[in-house]
Amino acid sequence: MKFTAGQIAQMLNGVVEGNPDVSVSTLSKIEEGKPGSLSFLSNPLYTHYIYKTEASIIIINRSFVPEHPVNSVLIRVESAEVAFGKLLELYNQIKNNKTGISKQCFIAETAILGNNIYVGEYSYIGENVVVGNNVKIHPQVFIGENTTIGDNTIFFPGVKIYSDNVIGKNCIFHAGVVIGSDGFRFAPQNEGNKKIPQIGNVVVEDDVEMGANCAIDRATLGSTIIRKGVKFDNLIHIAHNVEIGENTYIAAGAGIAGSTKVGKNCMISGHVAMTGHITIADGSSFGGQTAVSKSLTKPGQSYIGSPAMEASKFRRSIAVFRNLPRLSEQVDKLEKRQKG
Amino acid sequence: MKFTAGQIAQMLNGVVEGNPDVSVSTLSKIEEGKPGSLSFLSNPLYTHYIYKTEASIIIINRSFVPEHPVNSVLIRVESAEVAFGKLLELYNQIKNNKTGISKQCFIAETAILGNNIYVGEYSYIGENVVVGNNVKIHPQVFIGENTTIGDNTIFFPGVKIYSDNVIGKNCIFHAGVVIGSDGFRFAPQNEGNKKIPQIGNVVVEDDVEMGANCAIDRATLGSTIIRKGVKFDNLIHIAHNVEIGENTYIAAGAGIAGSTKVGKNCMISGHVAMTGHITIADGSSFGGQTAVSKSLTKPGQSYIGSPAMEASKFRRSIAVFRNLPRLSEQVDKLEKRQKG
Amino acid sequence: MKFTAGQIAQMLNGVVEGNPDVSVSTLSKIEEGKPGSLSFLSNPLYTHYIYKTEASIIIINRSFVPEHPVNSVLIRVESAEVAFGKLLELYNQIKNNKTGISKQCFIAETAILGNNIYVGEYSYIGENVVVGNNVKIHPQVFIGENTTIGDNTIFFPGVKIYSDNVIGKNCIFHAGVVIGSDGFRFAPQNEGNKKIPQIGNVVVEDDVEMGANCAIDRATLGSTIIRKGVKFDNLIHIAHNVEIGENTYIAAGAGIAGSTKVGKNCMISGHVAMTGHITIADGSSFGGQTAVSKSLTKPGQSYIGSPAMEASKFRRSIAVFRNLPRLSEQVDKLEKRQKG
Repeated sequence: MKFTAGQIAQMLNGVVEGNPDVSVSTLSKIEEGKPGSLSFLSNPLYTHYIYKTEASIIIINRSFVPEHPVNSVLIRVESAEVAFGKLLELYNQIKNNKTGISKQCFIAETAILGNNIYVGEYSYIGENVVVGNNVKIHPQVFIGENTTIGDNTIFFPGVKIYSDNVIGKNCIFHAGVVIGSDGFRFAPQNEGNKKIPQIGNVVVEDDVEMGANCAIDRATLGSTIIRKGVKFDNLIHIAHNVEIGENTYIAAGAGIAGSTKVGKNCMISGHVAMTGHITIADGSSFGGQTAVSKSLTKPGQSYIGSPAMEASKFRRSIAVFRNLPRLSEQVDKLEKRQKG
Repeated sequence: MKFTAGQIAQMLNGVVEGNPDVSVSTLSKIEEGKPGSLSFLSNPLYTHYIYKTEASIIIINRSFVPEHPVNSVLIRVESAEVAFGKLLELYNQIKNNKTGISKQCFIAETAILGNNIYVGEYSYIGENVVVGNNVKIHPQVFIGENTTIGDNTIFFPGVKIYSDNVIGKNCIFHAGVVIGSDGFRFAPQNEGNKKIPQIGNVVVEDDVEMGANCAIDRATLGSTIIRKGVKFDNLIHIAHNVEIGENTYIAAGAGIAGSTKVGKNCMISGHVAMTGHITIADGSSFGGQTAVSKSLTKPGQSYIGSPAMEASKFRRSIAVFRNLPRLSEQVDKLEKRQKG
Repeated sequence: MKFTAGQIAQMLNGVVEGNPDVSVSTLSKIEEGKPGSLSFLSNPLYTHYIYKTEASIIIINRSFVPEHPVNSVLIRVESAEVAFGKLLELYNQIKNNKTGISKQCFIAETAILGNNIYVGEYSYIGENVVVGNNVKIHPQVFIGENTTIGDNTIFFPGVKIYSDNVIGKNCIFHAGVVIGSDGFRFAPQNEGNKKIPQIGNVVVEDDVEMGANCAIDRATLGSTIIRKGVKFDNLIHIAHNVEIGENTYIAAGAGIAGSTKVGKNCMISGHVAMTGHITIADGSSFGGQTAVSKSLTKPGQSYIGSPAMEASKFRRSIAVFRNLPRLSEQVDKLEKRQKG
């Protein structure tokens, strides 16, 4: 796809300075701009790049006054940052605008399909699945029987959704995500251990995004619940019967054990581990690698450490930890002098 | 699938109290019971829910005496808990009872298939693969050449088994599991590093279950071995030439490095990391995020910490760690007074 | 495949001692040697096994003098270790020598395919993809539009490469790897959060290997870059706009957050977590579970701990940590005596 400076200025309600017929086919950072790319300048710290960049077109604030000659065609807009964000979205929409149903996919006769959907090659849609409007199911996806999917949701290649789950609207699942695998529950027996059947499901509410290779287990009974607006990075583990509150963010590699309830608006950093059967208050935040083994009931607090401590206390303790050998020597000297 | 109270009572050897023709199509927790669902009451702490639940049928202990009127149909049995467990299993068996071979899958001519198997859409079974009886290969699974699979084993969608592996009976592999990828071994060279060929395999014994997106590497030479009854949660890494002893449990996100031998009946919590070439005694248990860098040879001990310490010692040290700033001040005061 | 002692001696430029017609079909460790297998003896600590092993053929150093009778056929070479390495490579090459394009795969008309490639069942190659010579695309792989792939690169089953990425020569991607999923970036809004479009890509240079189920996010703008010779173990997370320097090794379960630049020749152990927007000097090494939250600019240093400390300092601090209860008691006694 190619667009001219004139076309872009029209989309953004901007004014062209230079040849309106210059065209671009990609986007770039101003410091990495190449011919045929479009960039933007907003942060004053990057202003010097505008005199050197090879980007063919640059979006700038209406108020910008160049101090040297600029080679690129300029498009002046009210806010270069907002305008560029709008362009990114348009670009993404055009790129992800596939529709149609491949002849090389499997769709059960009892499945109900919405309008304007995409189903890619080698995908599988099971019995009684309900697919909303504008849903995009990329190649090699599996949707198990009785699962329902809300409008506008996107499944990237290779996502696996087990049977009986409920997926909301406007969700995005990246490649390799697994939803609805069995919870990790076994009952000890005389010989070995016996699997406890996992017959619940997973409910993912609207506006949820999950990164690549996340694994979300179904509930033993009832539902594992991912509330509206939750965002997961890559490689996250959510166990059976967990509930993640609205608009909570979880960074890559974190894991939440069985039946734990995480509140709304929490920020959980990478590699955080939470034990099972605990409750985390709304607005809690956790530093990287924090290990949480107890309920935390006071909203809006920050934690770090393994095991978790209030972040400010942990930092004071770790400052002493860094000098423990000195403290130990200090104590030995005190002892010697006292004895002497 | 719908079942009436009468049918269920017959399966469970129970007695119906109320209309035996009332039917249910799903199971629920008593506190979340909805019309059309079946629940059970066993824990006395939940007794009050029986008077409010909307579950259509409730399984109760023979001895239960209601103190208020109950709206649901009751089925009285010797033990409500045992009876409900039996129902869960039946439910699961019926749900997972697919058989037949899809026309849209690839099976090499030299593969040998058992009786009563299921092979789903877009699955691939390579040359000389041997598949036991009652095996279920869901859609989009890959089984590489020369791999053998024992009876009753289940592969959920998207499992990838490389060539030359040996998989036991009654195993369950959840979506996204990878078995037999190359071990992480390279030899330094003048320029860059050279891959050491990984030509061993993985042996998974009977009754093993692995959660979603686990990754088990093949041995360099010989076998990576997962013994009978081992259970893995999601997103676990097992390196080349590792051996995991019988009935050991590993929770989500843990990783075991190359050539380490873990004993029987160990309990390894989430995010535990073990270094390579060490030996872990039978019955060892590890708290979440423990880092193990040395062999642990005394059976039945508990460890926690990064690096690992005996759990009781770690707890005493961490208690002081939480108050390190106070200890440091105390020492400074002592010094001042001593000098003064 | 079977090979006789005579054939193998010829490949290795060695001399047979015993029946040159004895044949083998597999390789084994000398301590686990079985009839029909070939093994080697190099490490003197393993010499005693040569008198007991059932391996049919053993490669030994020219200089080896047996002290007891040996049952196996021997092949004498200059260096048994080097010769065995050569055999492993040959074995691997023969095993991975698939070519041809399956009739059950999808290749867009605009894709450009090199010579001598393999494309397995149910794989998908999108619009404008360019595939180099000798590339092996195993079954169920997805290659998104506009992605280019260098010569000799191998994709194991189920790898998912999103659109617009650039993959080098001689790379290996193990099953379940995801390249090019969206970065984890959202802008807070009045209600919930808004996804920031991720329109950059991933560039993987030559000679890179990635283990099973790794997840590499595309850049927001520009490229996430994995430099020449980088090796990843399993289950690794690389965020948007990260750069990993040449010949750096990362062990299983590690994660690098957005925009961080890791230098050349670094060694990053299992479960290491690095925060975003930092820079790591060339030749840095990190112990297991290290958490890195600040730039580290001095080359060639070793770190460990959460948060990271210089390794030698961490070890001294942790030695005191192990005895913190004793130190605390010591201080209390000093205080008592001083007061007394």
